[in-house]
Amino acid sequence: MRVGLLGFGTVGSHFYELVRGRQDVQVKTVLSRRPRTGVDARVTANVQDILQDPEIGIVVEVMGGLHPAYEYVCAAMRAGKHVVTANKLLMCDKYGELVSLAASCGVCLRCTAAVGGGIPWLTSLAGAAQVDTLTAVEGILNGTTNYILSAMTRRGIGFSEALQEAQALGYAEADPAADVDGLDARRKLSLSADMAFGVILREEEVPCLGIGHITQGDIAAARDRGQVYKLVASAARREGRVSAYVCPALFAASTPEANLEGTGNLITLYGERLGRQSFLGAGAGGWPTGANVLRDCLAVNGGCESFYASAMVPQAVDNTAAEGKWLFRVNGAYTTKRESVAEAFSDYARCLKEDPCAFMAQMR
Amino acid sequence: MRVGLLGFGTVGSHFYELVRGRQDVQVKTVLSRRPRTGVDARVTANVQDILQDPEIGIVVEVMGGLHPAYEYVCAAMRAGKHVVTANKLLMCDKYGELVSLAASCGVCLRCTAAVGGGIPWLTSLAGAAQVDTLTAVEGILNGTTNYILSAMTRRGIGFSEALQEAQALGYAEADPAADVDGLDARRKLSLSADMAFGVILREEEVPCLGIGHITQGDIAAARDRGQVYKLVASAARREGRVSAYVCPALFAASTPEANLEGTGNLITLYGERLGRQSFLGAGAGGWPTGANVLRDCLAVNGGCESFYASAMVPQAVDNTAAEGKWLFRVNGAYTTKRESVAEAFSDYARCLKEDPCAFMAQMR
Repeated sequence: MRVGLLGFGTVGSHFYELVRGRQDVQVKTVLSRRPRTGVDARVTANVQDILQDPEIGIVVEVMGGLHPAYEYVCAAMRAGKHVVTANKLLMCDKYGELVSLAASCGVCLRCTAAVGGGIPWLTSLAGAAQVDTLTAVEGILNGTTNYILSAMTRRGIGFSEALQEAQALGYAEADPAADVDGLDARRKLSLSADMAFGVILREEEVPCLGIGHITQGDIAAARDRGQVYKLVASAARREGRVSAYVCPALFAASTPEANLEGTGNLITLYGERLGRQSFLGAGAGGWPTGANVLRDCLAVNGGCESFYASAMVPQAVDNTAAEGKWLFRVNGAYTTKRESVAEAFSDYARCLKEDPCAFMAQMR
Repeated sequence: MRVGLLGFGTVGSHFYELVRGRQDVQVKTVLSRRPRTGVDARVTANVQDILQDPEIGIVVEVMGGLHPAYEYVCAAMRAGKHVVTANKLLMCDKYGELVSLAASCGVCLRCTAAVGGGIPWLTSLAGAAQVDTLTAVEGILNGTTNYILSAMTRRGIGFSEALQEAQALGYAEADPAADVDGLDARRKLSLSADMAFGVILREEEVPCLGIGHITQGDIAAARDRGQVYKLVASAARREGRVSAYVCPALFAASTPEANLEGTGNLITLYGERLGRQSFLGAGAGGWPTGANVLRDCLAVNGGCESFYASAMVPQAVDNTAAEGKWLFRVNGAYTTKRESVAEAFSDYARCLKEDPCAFMAQMR
């Protein structure tokens, strides 16, 4: 199968290297504004050279961003080409539209690399959803915040220092807000929940609290209780309601979550019959992510002609019935409370008016 | 797709329940010596009713044992039927022959449920092997021994008591030797290594030490050092050599392995580019295992027409270059030594002559 590759950044260039020398998947044309040396494929700045090439069967979109990725992906499917993308922003924002378009065009649409880097998470999730009723998906979905929290916990450094370190190592963006505020994790959670439950969630309905307010004092106090902070994204379905939120959470030091180091991801599904299944691995990086893109191309080669899931019913996020136990820090004093996710986030909004540095975490 | 179901024990009956009411996969005929009530399918004691039925596209073999499962599976493939099996003994013993036969018959052969119960381990492993060079596979592959070791570690009970408990709960067989001596784990390791490295290992060449010699004293001494015993099966490929062994191992209390409770499995692959990926879940049980059998049937439905791997070169196990650090207990005294896996198992054989209760573990 010949591939048209849209984008030649970290993921694109690693995907290209992985494919080089293969017979089953070959990159024929690369879309790049800049000329690329050492690339054994046609390099063009005109996307039509890919969209109108009948030899190209798969379009791999690793440009990132919503536009023009969205327009290119739609045009590729309308031209009868299968699409593989690593773009979680695109998949999350245009989920229903893209899945419908793939179905009506009779092409395969895959996005395994959009969640969990190199972990075969979305494929495993989709497989589980086909044979079982899934009740929850959750996990540590953002490697940057896990790196920061691990560094703060293991080495006792402060948030700013840990963030600077993550940026120096290339883990965090120059503008780290999407990671630190939990928006990246929320996006990956929405996409996972959509596939797990056959729904379409609106990302912006998912309440989201990042790690920006965690202090060294919080972490030390948790350590004294044998607990560790992690940023967790969680979605569950119960009696037709779907709850979803992103929030720091306290884990006992003996749990797999508490011991996840560096930029790793740990993602878990719960099925009525499968029970708990967890998946650990590198949540980012050119090689792992490129490998998942390649795996999607091989699935297309193997005859895959559809999206992972077919059901998708728009569903409002409803956190009123999902209970939890919560830790609040307001003006330096800790209190705990058992209440619904919706109530906890409301309480926290009130706390912030009293103390702009207030902090909340779920107690697992 | 119509299914012929060979066997109606734990896995077979749970698979049947999972499939009931589905349109995409339907059980048409069940092979069972006994009549079965409440089964909405033809029940026969004559396997020819399945093998000669042109409507049946998939034969699901969950009888267990080598014979007549082997003969039935071969006959099914020769009759042009796809085969899904959960039978690790069969797959391990006849690996090369069955994979070749599937290829020559042009049918799909799948056995995901043979390793890791409901965990999508073999599918993930095969997917990883298609896009990366794998360097190692290892893990806690036997739920019964994990239950016994967890009970001994967490609750301080002795080996015999823990084993009796496992038997009473239905986790351990009346004859627990295959679990306790590590033979079940070795079989699952061989199958995993075959797929990971594109080889055929001879199971009996893999040195294997079970958990029968671990005492409460060993476990308490480890606890004092912040360590936990687990039974680990490990295979690695380096410079063309494949090492493989099964042995108790000591893990730091903070590792995911140390914190795996009950009958869980935790299986890990290492790839040159993917890094470490781990998979956790229920390693046994009718529902999870039946779900993986169903997933294999859906893969056949989705157009899968081959085995997971195509390469398979017979390869001798070579443990002379794989180094480790080992703990020996002989006549009540502990010593440690850094040496190859081959040397450690030789040393242990000598220790056993001196002290029939001698114990060895790898220090991770």
